[in-house]
Amino acid sequence: MGKKWVYLFTEGDAKMRELLGGKGANLAEMTNIGLPVPQGFTITTEACTQYYEDGRLINDEIMGQILEYVSKMEELNGKKFGDLNNPLLVSVRSGSRASMPGMMDTILNLGLNDEVVEAMIKGNPDPKFERFVYDSYRRFIQMFSDVVMEVGKKYFEELIDKMKEEKGVTYDIDLTAEDLKNLAEQFKAEYKKQLGEDFPSDPVVQLKEAIRAVFRSWDNPRANVYRHDNDIPYSWGTAVNIMPMVFGNLNEESGTGVAFTRDPATGEKKLMGEFLTNAQGEDVVAGVRTPMPIAMMAEKFPEAYKQFEEVCDLLEKHYHDMQDMEFTVENGKLYMLQCRNGKRTAQAALKIACDLVDEGMKTEQEALCMIEARYLDTLLHPQFDQAVLKASTPIGKGLGASPGAAAGRIVFTAEEAQEWAGRGEKVVLVRLETSPEDITGMKVAQGILTVRGGMTSHAAVVARGMGSCCVSGCGDIVMDEANKRFSLAGKTFVEGDWISIDGTTGNIYDGQIPTVDAKIAGEFQRVMKWADKYRKLKVRTNADTPADAKKACELGAEGIGLCRTEHMFFEEDRIAAFREMICSDSAEEREAALEKILPYQQGDFEGLFEALEGYPVTIRFLDPPLHEFVPTEYEDIEKLAQAQNKDVKTIQNIISGLHEFNPMMGHRGCRLAVTYPEIARMQTKAVIRAAINVQKRHLSWTVKPEIMIPLACEMKELKFVKKVVVDTAEAEIAAAGVKIPYEVGTMIEIPRAALTADELAKEADFFCFGTNDLTQMTFGFSRDDAGKFLDAYYDANILESNPFAKIDQDGVGKLMEMAIRLGKPVNPKLHVGICGEQGGDPSSVEFCHKLGLDYVSCSPFRVPIAKLAAAQAAINAQTEKRSFVDDETKEKLREAADKAQTIAKELAETSAEVAKAGLVALKAGVEEARKAYNETRKK
Amino acid sequence: MGKKWVYLFTEGDAKMRELLGGKGANLAEMTNIGLPVPQGFTITTEACTQYYEDGRLINDEIMGQILEYVSKMEELNGKKFGDLNNPLLVSVRSGSRASMPGMMDTILNLGLNDEVVEAMIKGNPDPKFERFVYDSYRRFIQMFSDVVMEVGKKYFEELIDKMKEEKGVTYDIDLTAEDLKNLAEQFKAEYKKQLGEDFPSDPVVQLKEAIRAVFRSWDNPRANVYRHDNDIPYSWGTAVNIMPMVFGNLNEESGTGVAFTRDPATGEKKLMGEFLTNAQGEDVVAGVRTPMPIAMMAEKFPEAYKQFEEVCDLLEKHYHDMQDMEFTVENGKLYMLQCRNGKRTAQAALKIACDLVDEGMKTEQEALCMIEARYLDTLLHPQFDQAVLKASTPIGKGLGASPGAAAGRIVFTAEEAQEWAGRGEKVVLVRLETSPEDITGMKVAQGILTVRGGMTSHAAVVARGMGSCCVSGCGDIVMDEANKRFSLAGKTFVEGDWISIDGTTGNIYDGQIPTVDAKIAGEFQRVMKWADKYRKLKVRTNADTPADAKKACELGAEGIGLCRTEHMFFEEDRIAAFREMICSDSAEEREAALEKILPYQQGDFEGLFEALEGYPVTIRFLDPPLHEFVPTEYEDIEKLAQAQNKDVKTIQNIISGLHEFNPMMGHRGCRLAVTYPEIARMQTKAVIRAAINVQKRHLSWTVKPEIMIPLACEMKELKFVKKVVVDTAEAEIAAAGVKIPYEVGTMIEIPRAALTADELAKEADFFCFGTNDLTQMTFGFSRDDAGKFLDAYYDANILESNPFAKIDQDGVGKLMEMAIRLGKPVNPKLHVGICGEQGGDPSSVEFCHKLGLDYVSCSPFRVPIAKLAAAQAAINAQTEKRSFVDDETKEKLREAADKAQTIAKELAETSAEVAKAGLVALKAGVEEARKAYNETRKK
Repeated sequence: MGKKWVYLFTEGDAKMRELLGGKGANLAEMTNIGLPVPQGFTITTEACTQYYEDGRLINDEIMGQILEYVSKMEELNGKKFGDLNNPLLVSVRSGSRASMPGMMDTILNLGLNDEVVEAMIKGNPDPKFERFVYDSYRRFIQMFSDVVMEVGKKYFEELIDKMKEEKGVTYDIDLTAEDLKNLAEQFKAEYKKQLGEDFPSDPVVQLKEAIRAVFRSWDNPRANVYRHDNDIPYSWGTAVNIMPMVFGNLNEESGTGVAFTRDPATGEKKLMGEFLTNAQGEDVVAGVRTPMPIAMMAEKFPEAYKQFEEVCDLLEKHYHDMQDMEFTVENGKLYMLQCRNGKRTAQAALKIACDLVDEGMKTEQEALCMIEARYLDTLLHPQFDQAVLKASTPIGKGLGASPGAAAGRIVFTAEEAQEWAGRGEKVVLVRLETSPEDITGMKVAQGILTVRGGMTSHAAVVARGMGSCCVSGCGDIVMDEANKRFSLAGKTFVEGDWISIDGTTGNIYDGQIPTVDAKIAGEFQRVMKWADKYRKLKVRTNADTPADAKKACELGAEGIGLCRTEHMFFEEDRIAAFREMICSDSAEEREAALEKILPYQQGDFEGLFEALEGYPVTIRFLDPPLHEFVPTEYEDIEKLAQAQNKDVKTIQNIISGLHEFNPMMGHRGCRLAVTYPEIARMQTKAVIRAAINVQKRHLSWTVKPEIMIPLACEMKELKFVKKVVVDTAEAEIAAAGVKIPYEVGTMIEIPRAALTADELAKEADFFCFGTNDLTQMTFGFSRDDAGKFLDAYYDANILESNPFAKIDQDGVGKLMEMAIRLGKPVNPKLHVGICGEQGGDPSSVEFCHKLGLDYVSCSPFRVPIAKLAAAQAAINAQTEKRSFVDDETKEKLREAADKAQTIAKELAETSAEVAKAGLVALKAGVEEARKAYNETRKK
Repeated sequence: MGKKWVYLFTEGDAKMRELLGGKGANLAEMTNIGLPVPQGFTITTEACTQYYEDGRLINDEIMGQILEYVSKMEELNGKKFGDLNNPLLVSVRSGSRASMPGMMDTILNLGLNDEVVEAMIKGNPDPKFERFVYDSYRRFIQMFSDVVMEVGKKYFEELIDKMKEEKGVTYDIDLTAEDLKNLAEQFKAEYKKQLGEDFPSDPVVQLKEAIRAVFRSWDNPRANVYRHDNDIPYSWGTAVNIMPMVFGNLNEESGTGVAFTRDPATGEKKLMGEFLTNAQGEDVVAGVRTPMPIAMMAEKFPEAYKQFEEVCDLLEKHYHDMQDMEFTVENGKLYMLQCRNGKRTAQAALKIACDLVDEGMKTEQEALCMIEARYLDTLLHPQFDQAVLKASTPIGKGLGASPGAAAGRIVFTAEEAQEWAGRGEKVVLVRLETSPEDITGMKVAQGILTVRGGMTSHAAVVARGMGSCCVSGCGDIVMDEANKRFSLAGKTFVEGDWISIDGTTGNIYDGQIPTVDAKIAGEFQRVMKWADKYRKLKVRTNADTPADAKKACELGAEGIGLCRTEHMFFEEDRIAAFREMICSDSAEEREAALEKILPYQQGDFEGLFEALEGYPVTIRFLDPPLHEFVPTEYEDIEKLAQAQNKDVKTIQNIISGLHEFNPMMGHRGCRLAVTYPEIARMQTKAVIRAAINVQKRHLSWTVKPEIMIPLACEMKELKFVKKVVVDTAEAEIAAAGVKIPYEVGTMIEIPRAALTADELAKEADFFCFGTNDLTQMTFGFSRDDAGKFLDAYYDANILESNPFAKIDQDGVGKLMEMAIRLGKPVNPKLHVGICGEQGGDPSSVEFCHKLGLDYVSCSPFRVPIAKLAAAQAAINAQTEKRSFVDDETKEKLREAADKAQTIAKELAETSAEVAKAGLVALKAGVEEARKAYNETRKK
């Protein structure tokens, strides 16, 4: 017996979603619980995968089963393909594991041909019926030609237009039965002209082609884009559902509708939906006629409506979730065509989750797992006034790089931004691309718009960190920086013009669209409390300023996981001293310059420790290459030269000496601390002095700085810098006589750090995965440049998601796992976190939970998302664990396997005799384990 | 019983070199075979390591043993420290495992103080003796103050100068006993002035301080530099040798000398050396008096000379190698102070190795292992005429980036280089730094000199590839490119001036120093034949042109391991078409432009296949980012615009669009083939058509192109590009009807490729480690920029060697091992090589042998080095294996351990019950293996 590739609706159930797709599984489930579903069958997703493996061919075994199930369907329904008395017409629809609305192909009315059409008309003398049949026929030919044979819509639309012109009518609906019959003939002729063969009249031939088309549509460009946007793996494939047609457009006793059991916008518990009499499914969506609210169906079809209400109730109780349904009434009789858990807004998701718990339909854990973590984002940023937005048309589109909406007056430089903002104006900073020098301007702007750069460009990363709205990489903008203007969509914009940008969609609008602050309603808090109850992972935030840190704490952050100290060097009063340091000739001069920055930096840290109230604060020491700090304009260079008492040429030489070919892999991170230990010394003083001061002010807190050394790739490097830190810190602590339980750890962001983590763990109190850089080095992708080819990689299905947004578990994840496995046994106290961009991505949070990390750290606005994702990860793991292997046993298995590796390696270093003896024993042990596995497994 | 930290010479032997250092082990060995050695003791290298571990302190246990051995030495020699009748005087010398001549500290005449001096003089009325004693005393104080207490020589030299002035004499030798006595007093006063304490008169105190100083000197800057240059690990530490003084400067019946048993310059078998009567060791080296040839010693001290000749004979027969010895004659009696295997030139090494085989003293394998592979380099390049060189002083120094010597007239651009060379002139190309556009100029130049860039800069890499001489990174040059001149050492050089550069030492000379071509003598060939006989690794070459390939084949290359195709795009006639391709608007335009390059490229490949005569040729497809190919000068951009029929602005926009922040991790390698498959298609056509043509011309050969896809990081990426290659290749092969057994493989040069090698191996016929890029990404070091901080890393002992020159086994090596371990089981036919810079480094070759690679590929001039290193690796492995575990058992052990890992992972995915049952079995097996190991081990 071969594999089963096809299932009747009566053979499946809701749990078989992976095999039957969502639609197929739910059709089966509805059938099982006795709902009125036209009885057809589902071809499995595995058949789709097989189709691609066989080089886009449906193999004989699968086709054989399909034909067998056609017979079964004919029998069940008492109709037959091509039968002139009782012809079977079917719909052929895609249905993957995850809902992908409108992305793949659907064919209706399959089974029609000249003979069937004639016979149907003969059997029903109503002239409206004749028109209905011919309309269905020409629609089928059109749909089949377009969707299945890829002839192209335009040829058929031209024929319709020509016909309407000849007949002097405006709408399709004014064409007569005769006209439509005529059109069907013309369509068939057009088909032959385009493809060189007759339109297939055999329903089985039609069916085979239609199934192939659905499989093929899994790989069409819009499906690929949708999958990429929604993290749906290409490997899943789509199922195909074959279902007998029912006709909502048969007559006035018929109709069709879509409905939700609760309001998908607000979550309110009431039946919501729309209904159209004498119509087919697509008419409801097409908007040619205005559908009526679902409640009005009660007047038109009281019986069917009552039945439908019962169905809704039954489905909610059955699925324990809000349902989204499609149904049809044919001659007064209700048919359910589809049901699924309904999509909903974030706000509705929260309310429904809470209500279902209150209604006793879900446990807290189950309710938590119902909420898509990433959608919470929309609740946390200002949004455009929806009414005004609806009336506006975007003039351009970039990447939605940091969510939220912003309207403001255009400025082109950080200085202008500060100037306008100082006057109380709202501004949007528009730049070719941003650099660290723009930070002050970015801080005061409502939003940031850049011409270049991707989702992880400087602008995007900084904006997300600040919670500011950002649209990046709008390549359509033609920028004229010199003259402070740009043009987009044919219009030239100058400083002071209003512009509005949507950091979620990436849309750009001319003029001012008012924004409203989103509110966090009561359910949000309730859900967050549940999340706190069930999650294991701590959630920290990436924050550089007390303001950001406070915001993050309000949103529930439990510490700072990454404070980037370099931003502190850019403020007006410090940058001069820092540039002085860079241009110094000796360690002494450098120290003198750093001494000027020390009080400022200490003040910054005091602010952070105050804001965190005793939560841990991880401070990363200076990371970027020095060239980011030096001026580029001649004027500024001149100023610097004067301040330094050096000539301009000397300063220019120093600056050009800082140039690097690949700054990302250049003189930065702890490499700066190795060449200029005085920088690390100054930063340590600032951290420890700040901690001492705050500790003195708040005796009930434990101020806990965690000093983090960036970019280490070798234990001796970390040891070197750690010594500088510890020597300095101990001296400060001894002088102050205040105990500060500081820690020194390292980022794991260079592949070699992960590969040699057993060595690094000897010197580190903690590891923190810097997955931005780790991803760059592991892939060899510069995130500033990868935008140029990544789209091609998504299009070719080489990559399915952006590794900078979502941890690449196969590569980067392997290094992370290795770092933990090597590091923990060496230093059991080692705590481990992550502070890359991916720290706020739900799937990455889940991965971190599985790896056994202690915390994730993300931008303030992502804290609630990370918390929810962490709770979901813990709950899912718990659910899995109940029936599966506990952590302790897993750990022991790992240990045993590691011991086997160790002994094997040791044996390989001994004599031949010892090695052979050991090998026999080891092999025997492994074989015993395998046997135990096989035997117990059989039970 | 604690550890033994100290050994009498009678307690050690030559095999204890690791513990006793080279000097100590050989003193012990000479003692054992009955040679006249003053009997002292050696403090072990472990004591040195312990000294550093204890925070630069000699702990009580070690000091206790030292004092105990002082007593033993006193007894053995019948003399005592500070004894007025029979005072013991000693020398204290360093001695590490590897010879580090002059790098660490030596103290002579230790044990002298005022009382001992007086007593000695009293015992010998000869006035010359008095002078000798005071001279020894003042020398000791001076040496002790300088070396042990770090007071600084200058204070003492000033006092001597003052004394000589007062006495009106020119030479030290003219100072009287009284003067020297006076000086000794002054020295002690100076000591007290500088250090605030009296000069120590207790010999034991003197000894303790001296031992500390020797330990400390292991970490002095010049020792660190020497170790770095000679790959000596910091962890080895130095031993300390304490030996009773014998005095070659006692009287005219005394003397001292150094000698070699064979000529270290030529290898000729004859006693070579120098001798001085009435002198101490340092006088021979200092050059104040001219030593006599060793043969003249026969007249002066016939007995001692005869004895010495016997000693030489004995030592050679004992050590089976040429010996370098120090000896002293005191009152006519011979004492041996040191012997070691003598350093020798490469030429001498070859001759001695061959002679020793012929003399029956060494086997071929042993002889091969005597030759330092990397020294062969000096035999393969032109050298300066030594006579002229000796009379020349360098005016500057850069990095010796590519060996050999060159003299030529200065040119500043590739065009000038071609122009001058076209007129038959020799030229040296001087550039700030080179770029691929300079290739044509580099080809015709005798040598290349750059202001910027390290050992792996473009200039260095390309020059080594071409076998041209290159000095890179001479930062002292002040370059004025605009005016075609530069200044160095105060002189301004212009186009046409003569300059000479030494690519081995990095020295730069004003004017023309004639060069001579090095010759490969007969022994060289003989040694290479032995190497071929014993090595397992194949050795291929990195070559881009038929000329390079031919040269490499002459030097013994067995194929091309890396042909970089990009260089082929830079020639005058192709670059235009390639730029056209870059500036194209569509795939069609690109294809049309590529079509123009195709015949050229095909011609290049035909040349290579012809040159290789059937050896495999690995062709790497286009790798560098496109911006390397576009013009930078306005004039050239204008020309390109005209050729393209586009306006200059458009071309400028295209060029600036190619700019990347981190080009090393940008749009290059197979990423280009993903975005522009037409490039890969054209290159495939060129390769396959060339192979077909050459195959047709030479029916007896098997033309075997191996197409190598660069920079892959993901299996699906390789699969995508491979499909383009295979589809194109199969079509060409089918059309021609000629069988070409081409292969398609991938470079492993991105960490993720190594991490996912099991996936990549499914699509690859071969792997080739691109350790240049792999090292960059694994460390996060841009090799173009790392020069800015690497020196600081060496100075701080964070890194001990340049990972771009020598494989980093702990990090990069781990990825290589992982790639092989993951890849081979998936694709047992997979062959694996390496083509990074490190392919020609002996220690890296050895590592590759151990990893089980199939071949290494290096620049043509490194082929003999790699072959020798490969042979040594195989011989060493064989020697180890004889008593140790064979490869098959090792492989089986690895398999068993891997199976344990697999089963552990599988068990972790099952139910609790199964997992626990499996765990018990697995643990039992591992414990059994451990037990077997422990028990058999005991026997």
